[in-house]
Amino acid sequence: MQAPVRSALKSIVGDAHYRETDGDLVPFSRDATPLFSARPDAVVFPADTQEVSAVVSLATRHGIPVVPRGAGSNLCAATVALHGGIVLSLTRLNRILEIAPAELLARVQPGVTSAALAEEAADQELLWAPDPGSRTVATIGGTIATNAGGLRGLKYGVTRDYVLGLEAVLPTGEVIRTGGRLHKDVAGYDLTRLLTGSEGTLAVITEATLALRPAPRSSGTGVAYFPDLAAAGRAVAAIISGGVLPATLEFLDRPCIDAVEAFAGLGLRSDAGALLLFGDDGEPDAVAHALARMSDACTTQGALEVTRAAHVAEAEALLAARRCALPALSRLGALTILEDATVPRPRIAEMVERIDEIADRHDVTVATFGHAGDGNLHPTCVIGSREDTESIVRAEHAFKDIFTTAVELGGTITGEHGVGAAKLPYLSAQLGPDQIALLRRVKDAFDPAGILNPGKLGS
Amino acid sequence: MQAPVRSALKSIVGDAHYRETDGDLVPFSRDATPLFSARPDAVVFPADTQEVSAVVSLATRHGIPVVPRGAGSNLCAATVALHGGIVLSLTRLNRILEIAPAELLARVQPGVTSAALAEEAADQELLWAPDPGSRTVATIGGTIATNAGGLRGLKYGVTRDYVLGLEAVLPTGEVIRTGGRLHKDVAGYDLTRLLTGSEGTLAVITEATLALRPAPRSSGTGVAYFPDLAAAGRAVAAIISGGVLPATLEFLDRPCIDAVEAFAGLGLRSDAGALLLFGDDGEPDAVAHALARMSDACTTQGALEVTRAAHVAEAEALLAARRCALPALSRLGALTILEDATVPRPRIAEMVERIDEIADRHDVTVATFGHAGDGNLHPTCVIGSREDTESIVRAEHAFKDIFTTAVELGGTITGEHGVGAAKLPYLSAQLGPDQIALLRRVKDAFDPAGILNPGKLGS
Repeated sequence: MQAPVRSALKSIVGDAHYRETDGDLVPFSRDATPLFSARPDAVVFPADTQEVSAVVSLATRHGIPVVPRGAGSNLCAATVALHGGIVLSLTRLNRILEIAPAELLARVQPGVTSAALAEEAADQELLWAPDPGSRTVATIGGTIATNAGGLRGLKYGVTRDYVLGLEAVLPTGEVIRTGGRLHKDVAGYDLTRLLTGSEGTLAVITEATLALRPAPRSSGTGVAYFPDLAAAGRAVAAIISGGVLPATLEFLDRPCIDAVEAFAGLGLRSDAGALLLFGDDGEPDAVAHALARMSDACTTQGALEVTRAAHVAEAEALLAARRCALPALSRLGALTILEDATVPRPRIAEMVERIDEIADRHDVTVATFGHAGDGNLHPTCVIGSREDTESIVRAEHAFKDIFTTAVELGGTITGEHGVGAAKLPYLSAQLGPDQIALLRRVKDAFDPAGILNPGKLGS
Repeated sequence: MQAPVRSALKSIVGDAHYRETDGDLVPFSRDATPLFSARPDAVVFPADTQEVSAVVSLATRHGIPVVPRGAGSNLCAATVALHGGIVLSLTRLNRILEIAPAELLARVQPGVTSAALAEEAADQELLWAPDPGSRTVATIGGTIATNAGGLRGLKYGVTRDYVLGLEAVLPTGEVIRTGGRLHKDVAGYDLTRLLTGSEGTLAVITEATLALRPAPRSSGTGVAYFPDLAAAGRAVAAIISGGVLPATLEFLDRPCIDAVEAFAGLGLRSDAGALLLFGDDGEPDAVAHALARMSDACTTQGALEVTRAAHVAEAEALLAARRCALPALSRLGALTILEDATVPRPRIAEMVERIDEIADRHDVTVATFGHAGDGNLHPTCVIGSREDTESIVRAEHAFKDIFTTAVELGGTITGEHGVGAAKLPYLSAQLGPDQIALLRRVKDAFDPAGILNPGKLGS
């Protein structure tokens, strides 16, 4: 970092909150995305909105890239400092400012973790609905910036559905407040939703007003084994066309079942081609009714076995099968590439079949699990060694084909992980050149100097 | 219209779909907003996306304003051709292209009415949730362009929550497709939600993919009378803090009750200060449970009387009290100005008190009804004669104070009607000059020539 800039940054955030040694920068050179890394020139830890504004204004004046960052738990290389510059860590803005049960909302700073907010809300019998897999570490800022999804998407939607208002700092330093405390507010363009999912390329989120829901009073969980994914897919269709929108509807394919069983020894059946976890929450009567209908749908569609958890501990054991899918697969190799191609719900079985063909063709191992309720698949490629560049290249080719297939089947290259640096090369194929050009003009409207997270969305 | 432009427009849409006589233009000189009118130079009725693209490209080349229009049922003068030019009527694009029960979605053209979509969906046991008061005439294009709300907002959200994807024509002629068929899709900035609520100022919507829900199997309705609005407000708070998010939670103040009773003779109590309609839908057991809890909450908070409808006809009669609030008030004078200032739910009673004070101060008659569940109020001013300019000016001053108060109480100048030309003068007070400047830059990113609906949002 040039001396005058270093000194200006130090005077903004204080010496103790400016870092630039190699040792300091290593943890900020990567995020949770494999295969991407780049060294920033410095990391700063501002204390408040004013310091954030001063940092980005300085960066705009000097044309220095700024990469806003929460926990760095994203899976699309959204927080890798591709062009160097300043990593702007929001972790010191970590206070829950307010929980207002009468308005069913919370006001929080971006560095609060999703899990911390969920716990605080639960203490007041409220639910913070978005539940990305990384929720114990993921910050609210990152959750909003990536419009994170999770296991409850079908019934409860995604992060975007819970963001009521934002305070955000434009790269030119102005502080704006979008939306507010209301579900109904149509005063102006919907910048709240535009910033949600903008992956730190338009503005820096410094405060969020978030919708909470009354906590459900009870929940129930079941598991069904099917001879193959096509049968599981038919069961999902039958459940939803029967009028149930359940809180949980997750599947594992055969390789995932095997990996989970080897990892956790949960007693999963070894002769099934697919496993479907189903569950719902709400009033006890309604949950019992929904579980009964889902069980019936599974049986009617040819399930080998359907079991409903008799109590909470049993339900937790069933959910563990889904929760440990990724760690179980990760154990099989040194490098695990987790993707999130998504297709319309009726095409899940077809998509998984196509994924298997693609994996065979490119000679890579791909196991698939995901959110059956919303077609959000997680094809996961396991590679034995990080030095096995040949396999890595084959995996990249396989994923390229997987993304093309997802778009061909009416889906998307990314359901919930985001574009970041990882998916940017595939975005134009989905959106077309006219929309890509429009995204760039929108980016320019927010960030004329192009300093915010360059090389990502809008670049 | 200049001869070369006229001839070009006729060759795009066909002679039969181009109009410019005074008689033709009168119905397109106003929308449902009182006090606003302006004569366009021509109205065109394109048949498809390509014709829309050709019209706007032509307009961009010649710098001619274009005002996209559905039914013109909006209440914010969003479709008044303030600067003349071309009204682009989307009413010929009126086909439901697809209803896909397995994906819980519909694909429609913008000229389809909200009611027509709701009926088609209901035939397949599906629910099109957004239900603005104008739904029998309002088009889907207008519903999306204004991000319309309705009576079910608390439980079901607003239009924005149901728009999955859009086809839209940029003012420069390019056709983009945003989003798609999926609830989870984070590929690119969220242009779907940015266009939703953009009031025809950014692009012309030519097709929409919309989320449907399983139709609820049953519903229930009740009514409670309270001595005053403060008690009704406490009941609303008790209902929601008790964990119920009901489908219906509507209130009428005393002047509304009187007007409705005089108009419809429904047998409403004449000694109550406020009436609260409550209702829910879903599985029969859950509905019964929710109704019981809401009744109890009303009783506990001092209701004079609580009645639950014993059957559908009785429920319809109760709902009629709310549905005919506006026609009942309209009968009291020649001019009815309906507004939609919105405040956080706990401040409804305070806001209505402030509205009454403001009305007294300006010597105008204001009655207030609205959506208690989401704080969305409809203060309505009735003026005896359209020629009574003094009263109209007093009403305008009163509304200015009402908007200021709404923002002061943490609310918004518009909960569901939109900004249009009617609220644009008040927008800066809510959003601040930096955000207004940003809205203009976003507008420029879509519409460099500034031809789409000038004088509205983004101007």
